[in-house]
Amino acid sequence: MKITIIGGGSTYSPELVEGLIEQANVLNLEELYLYDIDETRLNIVGGLVKRMVEAAGNPFKVQLSLNRQDAISGADFVLTQIRVGGQLARHVDTKICLAEDIIGQETTGPVGFAKAMRTIPVILDICKEIKEHAPNAVIINFTNPAGIITEAVMKHGDGVKVVGLCNVPYGIKVGIAEEYNVTVEDVEIDYVGLNHLSWVRKILVKGEDKTKDMILKTSGKPANIPQVAINEDFQIALGMRTNSYLDYFYVQDEMLKYLQSQEKTRAQIVSELEASLLEQYKDPDLKVKPQELEKRGGAHYSTVAISLVRDIYKDVSATHIVNVRNDGAIMDLPFDAVIEVPAVVNSNGAKPTAIGRLAPEIRGLIQHVNAYEELTVEAAVSRDYNKALLALSTNPLVTSVNKAKRILDRFNDEHNLGLQKN
Amino acid sequence: MKITIIGGGSTYSPELVEGLIEQANVLNLEELYLYDIDETRLNIVGGLVKRMVEAAGNPFKVQLSLNRQDAISGADFVLTQIRVGGQLARHVDTKICLAEDIIGQETTGPVGFAKAMRTIPVILDICKEIKEHAPNAVIINFTNPAGIITEAVMKHGDGVKVVGLCNVPYGIKVGIAEEYNVTVEDVEIDYVGLNHLSWVRKILVKGEDKTKDMILKTSGKPANIPQVAINEDFQIALGMRTNSYLDYFYVQDEMLKYLQSQEKTRAQIVSELEASLLEQYKDPDLKVKPQELEKRGGAHYSTVAISLVRDIYKDVSATHIVNVRNDGAIMDLPFDAVIEVPAVVNSNGAKPTAIGRLAPEIRGLIQHVNAYEELTVEAAVSRDYNKALLALSTNPLVTSVNKAKRILDRFNDEHNLGLQKN
Amino acid sequence: MKITIIGGGSTYSPELVEGLIEQANVLNLEELYLYDIDETRLNIVGGLVKRMVEAAGNPFKVQLSLNRQDAISGADFVLTQIRVGGQLARHVDTKICLAEDIIGQETTGPVGFAKAMRTIPVILDICKEIKEHAPNAVIINFTNPAGIITEAVMKHGDGVKVVGLCNVPYGIKVGIAEEYNVTVEDVEIDYVGLNHLSWVRKILVKGEDKTKDMILKTSGKPANIPQVAINEDFQIALGMRTNSYLDYFYVQDEMLKYLQSQEKTRAQIVSELEASLLEQYKDPDLKVKPQELEKRGGAHYSTVAISLVRDIYKDVSATHIVNVRNDGAIMDLPFDAVIEVPAVVNSNGAKPTAIGRLAPEIRGLIQHVNAYEELTVEAAVSRDYNKALLALSTNPLVTSVNKAKRILDRFNDEHNLGLQKN
Amino acid sequence: MKITIIGGGSTYSPELVEGLIEQANVLNLEELYLYDIDETRLNIVGGLVKRMVEAAGNPFKVQLSLNRQDAISGADFVLTQIRVGGQLARHVDTKICLAEDIIGQETTGPVGFAKAMRTIPVILDICKEIKEHAPNAVIINFTNPAGIITEAVMKHGDGVKVVGLCNVPYGIKVGIAEEYNVTVEDVEIDYVGLNHLSWVRKILVKGEDKTKDMILKTSGKPANIPQVAINEDFQIALGMRTNSYLDYFYVQDEMLKYLQSQEKTRAQIVSELEASLLEQYKDPDLKVKPQELEKRGGAHYSTVAISLVRDIYKDVSATHIVNVRNDGAIMDLPFDAVIEVPAVVNSNGAKPTAIGRLAPEIRGLIQHVNAYEELTVEAAVSRDYNKALLALSTNPLVTSVNKAKRILDRFNDEHNLGLQKN
Repeated sequence: MKITIIGGGSTYSPELVEGLIEQANVLNLEELYLYDIDETRLNIVGGLVKRMVEAAGNPFKVQLSLNRQDAISGADFVLTQIRVGGQLARHVDTKICLAEDIIGQETTGPVGFAKAMRTIPVILDICKEIKEHAPNAVIINFTNPAGIITEAVMKHGDGVKVVGLCNVPYGIKVGIAEEYNVTVEDVEIDYVGLNHLSWVRKILVKGEDKTKDMILKTSGKPANIPQVAINEDFQIALGMRTNSYLDYFYVQDEMLKYLQSQEKTRAQIVSELEASLLEQYKDPDLKVKPQELEKRGGAHYSTVAISLVRDIYKDVSATHIVNVRNDGAIMDLPFDAVIEVPAVVNSNGAKPTAIGRLAPEIRGLIQHVNAYEELTVEAAVSRDYNKALLALSTNPLVTSVNKAKRILDRFNDEHNLGLQKN
Repeated sequence: MKITIIGGGSTYSPELVEGLIEQANVLNLEELYLYDIDETRLNIVGGLVKRMVEAAGNPFKVQLSLNRQDAISGADFVLTQIRVGGQLARHVDTKICLAEDIIGQETTGPVGFAKAMRTIPVILDICKEIKEHAPNAVIINFTNPAGIITEAVMKHGDGVKVVGLCNVPYGIKVGIAEEYNVTVEDVEIDYVGLNHLSWVRKILVKGEDKTKDMILKTSGKPANIPQVAINEDFQIALGMRTNSYLDYFYVQDEMLKYLQSQEKTRAQIVSELEASLLEQYKDPDLKVKPQELEKRGGAHYSTVAISLVRDIYKDVSATHIVNVRNDGAIMDLPFDAVIEVPAVVNSNGAKPTAIGRLAPEIRGLIQHVNAYEELTVEAAVSRDYNKALLALSTNPLVTSVNKAKRILDRFNDEHNLGLQKN
Repeated sequence: MKITIIGGGSTYSPELVEGLIEQANVLNLEELYLYDIDETRLNIVGGLVKRMVEAAGNPFKVQLSLNRQDAISGADFVLTQIRVGGQLARHVDTKICLAEDIIGQETTGPVGFAKAMRTIPVILDICKEIKEHAPNAVIINFTNPAGIITEAVMKHGDGVKVVGLCNVPYGIKVGIAEEYNVTVEDVEIDYVGLNHLSWVRKILVKGEDKTKDMILKTSGKPANIPQVAINEDFQIALGMRTNSYLDYFYVQDEMLKYLQSQEKTRAQIVSELEASLLEQYKDPDLKVKPQELEKRGGAHYSTVAISLVRDIYKDVSATHIVNVRNDGAIMDLPFDAVIEVPAVVNSNGAKPTAIGRLAPEIRGLIQHVNAYEELTVEAAVSRDYNKALLALSTNPLVTSVNKAKRILDRFNDEHNLGLQKN
Repeated sequence: MKITIIGGGSTYSPELVEGLIEQANVLNLEELYLYDIDETRLNIVGGLVKRMVEAAGNPFKVQLSLNRQDAISGADFVLTQIRVGGQLARHVDTKICLAEDIIGQETTGPVGFAKAMRTIPVILDICKEIKEHAPNAVIINFTNPAGIITEAVMKHGDGVKVVGLCNVPYGIKVGIAEEYNVTVEDVEIDYVGLNHLSWVRKILVKGEDKTKDMILKTSGKPANIPQVAINEDFQIALGMRTNSYLDYFYVQDEMLKYLQSQEKTRAQIVSELEASLLEQYKDPDLKVKPQELEKRGGAHYSTVAISLVRDIYKDVSATHIVNVRNDGAIMDLPFDAVIEVPAVVNSNGAKPTAIGRLAPEIRGLIQHVNAYEELTVEAAVSRDYNKALLALSTNPLVTSVNKAKRILDRFNDEHNLGLQKN
C-alpha cells in the first residue's frame, strides 16, 4: 500500500506520520510519498518525518518528491493538504475584506472564496494525474474550504474518488467525551450540515440523551476561533450543539469588530508559528512531533484521517462524518451538493445516511451557504467574472453587492485569478 | 354579491372603490361593507366612499360597520387591509432596529416580523368568523407582510380560502409597458419568488425577449423605496429584473446608512400624508379620489384586486401573480410555503404554475427568507419566545443573534406580544 | 399566419378545417398546408378541404404538398397527426399481443410501444426541419401515444416547442355539461395524470361540487372503448371520475377476454370506416364534413386544437389541459416526465399548474406507466434492444417478461425496428 | 439483558436459540422469554430450547410464558415472529386467489394483504404494551409481510422503536460468497428496494466488480420459490441480481399456471413439515436443532437477527440491510415509506444510506408496490372497506378490480376482518 501526501511540506505532516507509524501494520503501509512544490520545506519536514520513521524501526519507506506524477503514480490514497498562495495570500485577502467592514473567514467566508478560486484549478490538475497514473486511488481532502474543494472534485474531477475530511466533528465528540469522562466510542452524535457550518441535533453518551445538558458547555471548542459571547437564550432556543465556525454568522457584527480590533491576522499568527515549528523541525536530534504543533489548529487530523484510510482499505462499511455527495440525504439541498454528515464508507464509495428535512432554524442558512458554494465551484471552473460576482454576492457574510464587486476586483488583481466577463 | 373590506377606514379605500364603481356591472356587486375598529376614520373615509358611489348613480349599496361579524356575514369576498398598532407601532419598531444598526423594513425585515406577530392573531380570528358566517368567502389579503400573513391563514385559518395579493408584480409590468409604449397585456413576465423578494427571469414584449434590454432601466420602480445605487456589473451578472424591495438585501450596508441618515421614518412620512388625506376626505364636496393618494405607495392596488375578484367570481381560470401555497411549484421550497408566482385562479382555488428548480444566485436568499417566514408563522401562532428568537435570528437582515434578542425583547415589551419561554 | 398539418391526408382533416374556417378571422390565418406521404389520400382529403374552404368564401389559402420542407417552412404552428405503418401495422401488432394473452392497446399498451418505436424517429426528423425552416413554430402533437411522442420531442427535439394534445379531457367536460344541461365553460375539473391515464379529482359545476354525484354516471365516455363493467364499490371507493382508457388496467383480465372474443380488431374497423369516408370525400359535390366522421373517435379534436392555437397565438395565458413537461408539478414523478394536467399556455411556453402529491390509489399506476414511458423514449432514440426489452417488460399490461421478449422480437421482425444488442 | 420472542412457539425458535447460545457472552444475555398464545407448541418448542440451553451450560435463563405483558416487561429487544391465523388461514387465502386466477403470494401479493390485515392490530397492541412496560425496547420484526408490518409500527406504533428484518439480503451475500469461495465479509452489495422486492445494483467481491459475472448464476436462490425460467435476454438487459420473490411479478402468468398445477399449497407443505418438526422437538433426548429445520425456509435468520441485536446493543454504527423509514434515501418514494436498504444501526436508531434516484426499470414496480403497501397500512388501521378495496386493487398482481372486490369479500368473510364502508 502506498500513501501520497500532496503538500507534504506542511507543518502538519509529522502529526499524520505519527499516526501512520502507529497503524502501519494494520494498513500494510509500504510506501509514504511526501510531495511539495517548496523544496526547502519539503526537506525540513521530510527530514523530521524520516527520522521519526527510522526511530520507529522503519515500518515503511519514506520518499520525498518534487515530481507530482512520480508521487501520485500507483498510490492507493492521495492526501491533499495544500495552500495555494500560502499564508501571505490569506493575509492579503483578509485585509481586503476587513477594509470593507466584511469578515474574511477563510473557509465559509470571502477569503475562503478566494482560496477556492486559486485552489480548484490545481486540485483538478491533480485529479487528471490520478486518473492516469493511479486510477483506483482515493483522495482524502483536508484542503480548505474542504466542502467546496470536495464538491469541485466530485463535479469536475474526471470521476476520481474523493472523500472530504474535517477534524471538527471528531473534536466535538472528544469534547463531549471529556465532559462526561468517557471514551469517544461511548459518544454518538446526530450531526448535520456543511463543512464548517454544522450542528449536532442529538448527543447520546452511552445511549443516554445529553443534548440539553451540553447546550451551554464549551468543551471541545477549537482554540483558533475568537470567543465572542452568544446569549444563552439563543443557545437554549436553538437546542443544538454548534460547530464553532457558525459564530461568524451568529454574531457577525461583534465578530467583525473583534477581528478589526486585532493587531495581527490569523494568517500572520500562523506564519510565525510555522516559522518556529520549521526551526524546530530542522534539529537533527528531533525524532518526535514537537508539543507546539498543537497550537496549529489541526487537532485530531491524524486520528480521523488514518481511521478513514484504514476503514476504506479494510472495506468494513464503518460510519465516518465526512464530506460526501448529498444524493437526497438532505432533501432540502440539491442532489449534487456536498454535505458533511455521517456516511458509510467502504470500497463501494461513501454514502451519506438519510437526514430527512431540516428544521427551519438551520435550514435557511445551510441552503444560503450551499447556493454560494455551488456558484463558487462554477466560477472557479469557468473563470467567469459574472459567476464569481454572483458567488461572492450570495455569501451571507457579504452584506452588499457593491462591496462584493470591490472585493472581487481586488482579489482578481492581487492573485491574477484570470476572471473574464463573457 | 357582497364584498367586505376589513380595515375599510384605510386611506386606500377610495382607490378600491373607484375600481369597484367601474366594474360593478361585471361583478354583479350588490353590497359593499366597510368595517373598521376606528369609528372616526371609518366615518371620514366611509363618507367619501358613499359620496363617490352616489355620484356614480348608486350601482351598489355601501354599509359602514363597527361590527365585524355583521360585516363578514354572507360575504363573497373579504378584503383584508389592516395595520394592527398603526403607523406609530411601525415607527417605534423601526427606531428599535436602527438603534441596533439593523434595517427595520416592515415586510421582509424585523419590523415586518413585529407586524406579523401583532397581526396574525387578529387575522386568524377573522378566519374563525368567516368560517362560521361566510364559509364560501375568499379572503383577498393585502395586509403586509403579505406572504407571511397568507401563509398563516393557509396553515392555521380553519380552511378558509385565501389569496395573497401585492401590487408590485403588476407595477413591474406597467413599468415595462411604459418603456416600450405598449399595453400591459402585451407584456409577459416569468416572475418568481416570495412576496417582496422576487425576480423576473424573462420579459417578453409582444412575444419578443426584452430581458437583457430592461436590466439597467429603472421604469416601474416604486417611489417609496430609497434609491441606493447597485453596481451595473452585478445587475448584468444577475441578468434578471428585480423587485425593488430586494435592494434592502443587495445593498444592506448602504441602505442602513441611508435610513439612519433620514430625519423621519417612513412611518412618520406616511402618518403625515394620511392626516392630510383624511383632512381632504372630510370635504363634503369631494366625490372623487384625490390626486395626493398616489404618494401613498399602493399604485395599481385597485386594478389588481378587482381583476382578481372578477376572475375568481367569473371562474375563468385566468393567470394572476399572487401569493399561493407552493405545492411543489418551486422544488427548492417546502410544500406548504407561500410563494409569489403566476397562478391559475378559479372557483377551485389558486394553483401556482410549476417553476422547477431555481438558479443558485436567487435560490439561497429565497430559501433563507422562507425559513425565517416559516418560523415567524410558528412563533406568532404559538407565542413561544424561543421560536420568536429563532425566527428573528434567521432573518438575513439581522446580523447578530445578540441583537436579535435585544430587539425581540424590546418588541415584546413595547407591544405586549405575550411571548413565553416554554 | 401559417398552419401546417403533417399527416394532412388523415380523414380527420375535414373536422379540423371546419374549425379553422370558423375561427379564421380570430387567428388571422393566411395559409393552410396539408402535407402527407400518401399522394392519393392527400388529393382526396385535400380536395374536400379545398371545396370546404372555397364554399366559405376562401378565408385562407389551402396548399397540398408532398414536400415536407416546403410545408413546414415559415409555419407558425405544425399540427402532427401521423400514423407510421398505418392501420395495418396496428392490426398486426394487436394480433401479436392477443396471441400471447396480452392486451395490445395502442396508446398505453404494447401496441402503443410499437407505434412509438416507429413514430419517434419520424417526429424527431420533423423537429430538425422545423428548427431550420420554422424556428418559432409550435408543434401541436395529436399523434398517439401522445404523451410519449411529446416527451420524445421535449427531450430530443432540438429545443423545438411542443404541446401534446388529447381530446379526452375536453370530452369529459362535455359529458359533465350534458349531464347538468350547462355549457362547457360552467364546468371546472381538477384533472391529473398522464395521457390516457388520468383522473378527475374534483368536479365543479357553476362552482358547486358535483364529484360524488358524477361517480356512477357514464355520460361523456368515448364510444371506441369496450364497455366492460367495473363494480360500483370500486368506483365509489376511488371517488374520482376516470379516463375510460384506464379500464384496460382496471379490468385487465375481462378486457383481454372481450378483445379476444371480437372478430375484428379496432384497426380493421377503423380501416373500413376510413375507406368509406374516403369514398364519400371523393364526391366533388361534398363541401362539408360528412356525419359518419363522428364514428372515427376524435370528437372535439377541432375544438381543442383550434382554441389552443388561438390562445398561444394571442398570448392570453389561458389554461388548457395538455401534455407538458412536469417540472415538479407532480412531485411524485421525474422533473422531465410529460404529464397531462391543466397548464398555462402563452408565448412563453406551457407551464403546468402545481398538483402536489398524488393519493396512493392513483400514484402507483401513474408512476409505473411513467417509468415505462421513460424507457420507451430511451429505447426509441437509442434503438437499443435491451432498453426496448426493459421498456416493454415494465408496462403493467405485460404480465410476463418472457412474453415481453417474444412480443418484442415479433415487433422487431415485422417492422424492421432495427433494434440492436449493445 | 433480556430478549423476548413473541411467537416463541414457532418452529424457528431453536435456530435463533442456537445463535443466542453462541453469542450469549458478547450480548451479556441474562434472560430469554418465549411467549406464545398456543400452550402446546410453546411447551414443545420451549422444552427443546430449555434442553439446548442446559446442554450449553446455562449461559442464560429461559422463561416460557403465556402472559404477554410479563414476557415484554423490561425487555431490551422484542423479536416478533407471529402468524395470526396460522398456516390454515394462509392456505384458505391462497385458494381464494387461485380460484380467481390470481397469484396469492403471502408477502407482496394479496395473501400478504390478508395477513397484514390480521396481523397489524395485534402488532400495534404489542407496541402499546412495549411503550408502557419496556419503553426502551427495540422491536426486531421478522413477521411477514415484513415491510408492511414495520411501516405500520413506524406510523402507528406510539413511537416504539422497530427495525424490520429479512433473511434474503444476507442469503444473497452468502450465495455470492459461495460462488467465489470467499467469506461473506468479502462481499459488498449495492442493494435497494422494498422487502421481497429488491435488486442488487452492484456486486463487489474483495473490491472487484462481479456484477455482470453473477447475472445468470443461481447460487443463493431461496429453495421455497418455484423455479420458473426467465429468459436470459431480460436478465442481461436488467443487469442486476434480483431478489427471487420478484419472479412472481416478472413471470406472473407462468407462475400462476405453475401454482395452479400444484397439488398442495405452500401452506400445506409447511404445515406438514412443522408437524414433523414438532414431533421431533418432543423427543426429550433431542438437545440440538434438527437438520430438517433447514427446509423451513428461514436460512440465516439466526445469524442476521443476532448480529443486528448485538450491533444495536453495542452501539457500533454498523451497516445492516434492514427495513427502515425512507426519509429521502430513495427520492422516488414518500418520506415515510419503509424501504429495505443498507442502514447504519446504533442506539440513535437505524438510518438508511442515501440511494438517490432509481433507474426506471426498477422504479415503476417499486413505486407501484409501495403505493399498495401505504394503502394496506391505512386499511388495516382504519378497517375501512373502501381503503381495503383500493389497496388490493392497487397490487400489481391483482389484474382486475372486480376480482379484487370478490377476493376482498371472501377475505372479510373468512377472517372476520371487520371492514366497514364509511
